[in-house]
Amino acid sequence: MYKMLSYLPITQWLPHYRQGDATQDSLAAVIVTLMLIPQSLAYAMVAGLPPVYGLYASILPLLVYTILGTSKTLSVGPVAVVALMTMETLTEMYPMGSPEYINSASLLAMLSGMVLLFMAIFRLGFLTHFISHPVLSGFMTASGILIIISQTKHLLGVTAQGDNAVELLIHLIQQVPTSNVYTAGIGFGSLIALIMSRRFLSAGLMKIGIASHIAKQIVKLSPVMVMLLCIAIVSFFQLNHDGVRVVGQIPSGLPVLAVPTFSLTDLYTLLPAAIIISLVGFVESASVGQTLAAKRKEKISANQELIALSGANIASAISAGFPVTGGLSRSVVNFDAGASTPLAGALTAVGISITALYFTPLFETLPQSVLAAIIIVAVSSLIDFKAILNVWKESKIDGFSMTITVLGVLLINVEIGIVLGVVSAIFLYIMRTSHPHIAIVGLMPNSQHFRNIARHQVETSSHIVTIRIDESLYFVNAQYLEDKIPQYITQFPAAKHLILMCSGVNDVDVSALDSLKKIISDLSERDVVVHLSEVKGPVMDKLIHCHFLEMLTGDVYMDQFTAYQSIKIKV
Amino acid sequence: MYKMLSYLPITQWLPHYRQGDATQDSLAAVIVTLMLIPQSLAYAMVAGLPPVYGLYASILPLLVYTILGTSKTLSVGPVAVVALMTMETLTEMYPMGSPEYINSASLLAMLSGMVLLFMAIFRLGFLTHFISHPVLSGFMTASGILIIISQTKHLLGVTAQGDNAVELLIHLIQQVPTSNVYTAGIGFGSLIALIMSRRFLSAGLMKIGIASHIAKQIVKLSPVMVMLLCIAIVSFFQLNHDGVRVVGQIPSGLPVLAVPTFSLTDLYTLLPAAIIISLVGFVESASVGQTLAAKRKEKISANQELIALSGANIASAISAGFPVTGGLSRSVVNFDAGASTPLAGALTAVGISITALYFTPLFETLPQSVLAAIIIVAVSSLIDFKAILNVWKESKIDGFSMTITVLGVLLINVEIGIVLGVVSAIFLYIMRTSHPHIAIVGLMPNSQHFRNIARHQVETSSHIVTIRIDESLYFVNAQYLEDKIPQYITQFPAAKHLILMCSGVNDVDVSALDSLKKIISDLSERDVVVHLSEVKGPVMDKLIHCHFLEMLTGDVYMDQFTAYQSIKIKV
Repeated sequence: MYKMLSYLPITQWLPHYRQGDATQDSLAAVIVTLMLIPQSLAYAMVAGLPPVYGLYASILPLLVYTILGTSKTLSVGPVAVVALMTMETLTEMYPMGSPEYINSASLLAMLSGMVLLFMAIFRLGFLTHFISHPVLSGFMTASGILIIISQTKHLLGVTAQGDNAVELLIHLIQQVPTSNVYTAGIGFGSLIALIMSRRFLSAGLMKIGIASHIAKQIVKLSPVMVMLLCIAIVSFFQLNHDGVRVVGQIPSGLPVLAVPTFSLTDLYTLLPAAIIISLVGFVESASVGQTLAAKRKEKISANQELIALSGANIASAISAGFPVTGGLSRSVVNFDAGASTPLAGALTAVGISITALYFTPLFETLPQSVLAAIIIVAVSSLIDFKAILNVWKESKIDGFSMTITVLGVLLINVEIGIVLGVVSAIFLYIMRTSHPHIAIVGLMPNSQHFRNIARHQVETSSHIVTIRIDESLYFVNAQYLEDKIPQYITQFPAAKHLILMCSGVNDVDVSALDSLKKIISDLSERDVVVHLSEVKGPVMDKLIHCHFLEMLTGDVYMDQFTAYQSIKIKV
Repeated sequence: MYKMLSYLPITQWLPHYRQGDATQDSLAAVIVTLMLIPQSLAYAMVAGLPPVYGLYASILPLLVYTILGTSKTLSVGPVAVVALMTMETLTEMYPMGSPEYINSASLLAMLSGMVLLFMAIFRLGFLTHFISHPVLSGFMTASGILIIISQTKHLLGVTAQGDNAVELLIHLIQQVPTSNVYTAGIGFGSLIALIMSRRFLSAGLMKIGIASHIAKQIVKLSPVMVMLLCIAIVSFFQLNHDGVRVVGQIPSGLPVLAVPTFSLTDLYTLLPAAIIISLVGFVESASVGQTLAAKRKEKISANQELIALSGANIASAISAGFPVTGGLSRSVVNFDAGASTPLAGALTAVGISITALYFTPLFETLPQSVLAAIIIVAVSSLIDFKAILNVWKESKIDGFSMTITVLGVLLINVEIGIVLGVVSAIFLYIMRTSHPHIAIVGLMPNSQHFRNIARHQVETSSHIVTIRIDESLYFVNAQYLEDKIPQYITQFPAAKHLILMCSGVNDVDVSALDSLKKIISDLSERDVVVHLSEVKGPVMDKLIHCHFLEMLTGDVYMDQFTAYQSIKIKV
């Protein structure tokens, strides 16, 4: 029973819910709701869906996360990158916005929920660790660029297509002359207003005497204010009759609950995308949740988060939504607004429900170019060229896998981009281990410590050569060792003893043991005895298990100093 | 000029060629030729080609290898595994034995030669190191089983098909009642004769006074003797009119030299198979070459071997052959027969040419079931269940990737089998590094050496905790460290200093540095100072380059003992 309840974190915090919590949660919910309305409409557009589906994806998932989630401030719902991946997956199957397309979006959320549940059951959350920080950062920046390019067409009111970011950009530039002047005016006007309010509004409000934290909250509401202003302008001048594309009539009311229809072929086709969306969505959500929790000295449970996100996606699927996850910007707003428990999320869901029930007529004259402007400003925070430059400065190898990711996203598509990034990072890591750093070491003066003879002034003996291999010994570098170690010994013609100092050897496998055996028998013909020193516990266990010590010509020493001293006395 | 000549190893040994060499090489060539005739006919059958193409693939490639190769005893030509891979690749494209099929076999050799040349130019020979010993051994055993199953149909004279080894076996068993009694009689008779001669002939010959080394050579010729005997039986009883399938009429003469015809689509389709064939072929050839060279204290050059095999395959392609490589059994025979220089290979080519010119009428009544028996006996040496069992005993992880390979080959196909094996071995290695072994260490009595407190009686201090992480720190384990290290510190409430002993840390990347920074700032809030000890040169270079030391709360010590002593005085 207790075990059961541990899967429902709400049972831990709800009984202690206090009056003060309610005040804080309500305030945060109001602010997040006002921010989420334009954002959810906009991200539905990124996903290639009619805007109202963004509202649908922002109700049930939030309620479910409130029950299952372990982060007190994470705000779950549609996010930019996941919406982009949804769009890229579905446009290859159905015409954008068609009933099949809409149904498949829900199906993708359903599958995504299943994948996350599978990951939770089999404790596969660690799979997300395969996405390195540079790959993730390259992925985010490239996705941001791709979203901006793809939204610019809505900003200008033109149609542009392309199989990748570059093609799209070229087509977009060619189409500029066909843009609608009112649409572009509203779009760029909104864009400038949003950028200005980000830059200067808070300082301006503080100047006229408004407290800093309130000024900050007001800035967060600028998208909703710009949206309302544009609705008013379009309605007043009837610009929708002059070619300004608007959201149009949408049904009032809550989404109808239903399991999306599917065939086995659909599942099979969507599964790869669902896996990648789940991994990327979980990485984003977990890192946001963790960062915010750490700020308040709280903790989140990675595995329970998988369950919570699984639940949120399944909830989204059965309420006509699309894949959701924990989003950075909204969660930060929720956190800053002082959300005290996950109930803030449930209250936000209530706010969005009210909007869906009563305020949808408002969006009839909402121009799509305003939503595009809101997206462009929101995703611009994903783009971080400075971080990219820093990675290059710090490490060429990390820089390389990051660049592969960026190019993959921009020249092929988001899924291929992240897969290429992960695979190249792993390949480069394996490559590094294939040519391990090998040092000939000697005794540091006045110590029992041994160091590289090439870097330090150390004591050596002409009869004893000590080689330190700085890598686990395994199949990828086994042949390299077989080639290199005898070569090293050839440089010391007087050598009678080779000590392999194993402080850097964290593991050995069957292939490496084969190679070591060959090295030992090769050296034994040259009358060189092979010893081991500083073999770690787990490696020693393996050597014993594989009867390796029986064919070792020398001895195994606990530490290098003892090895050196003992052998020195003998020769 | 000198550089140019280094690509032609023949220029180094031919000028010193002596009379004695010629005698030895000629003798070896005669023995290998007699062994190669039935083998090459048989392997052509494995490759799905008319038998005579096996002779074609055993002429020009041998001459080219004589000029380019660095092994003195390697015998290049058709081999079982490569023939099997050729067949599996081509049967998916064309009906077996059709003109398109035959042309594509040459094309595959051509592409394989190109891939090997590419690998030589870009020094990619190390890619073969990605195939671990257990994966290779599983691959060889499974390929041997697959070849035996597929040849049993020729042995019985039935037709059987299947997409994988299991389906083929089931179909084969169902077809047993349709088998031709003469065919099966000849097949099983040959099989028993070959097995018996392997087991008992050499001992029998020695009993009647024949010297051991000569007896051994005679045993090697038993396939050709069995073949001649069966040709005689079939001719005499005219069994080819009673349903015994024979090789039939084949044109006398040398192959016509021509570049295989191709389209871009062909190249594109064949390329993946060509890459895998090249890698597997090179691994087999290089390991045979290396083993034999080591026995005579000679060396082979891996990169020159790539060039030589590339040349041999291109030569095979333009002389109507199929992919070739250095084969184990033939090379061992060549070695045992005393081949002294690569000229033995060229003389073997002359022997095969004479056969193609004058002896092809002999094969008209050669029953296919004899060839099947010869193949089955030859490839049975590939099957090594004991090695498979040993790997399982020595290491579960190696055993797992080996089993994946075996299952892949038998249940899917050879190419998928080896790819799955390599990928699973790499994945399992990465998985091991994702949860590194972490030891809390203390000072060993009467030494300056630090060891795991869980394994040894060591001195510790309640204020100083030393953690030794036995792995390179990189993106796959960065998050794990972030979770674990603070947990370890929680177990020591009095801890004021954490020393990270880096003797096992062979590398760090950007992701790991991010995590270390978080750990340091997390611990600094708990008033724990973080120090580093025994940081290796290359890692230290990176820490300095990334300005990591600037945010380290403690110091970096050359060795762990100094770190412990210095901090102990302070607290």
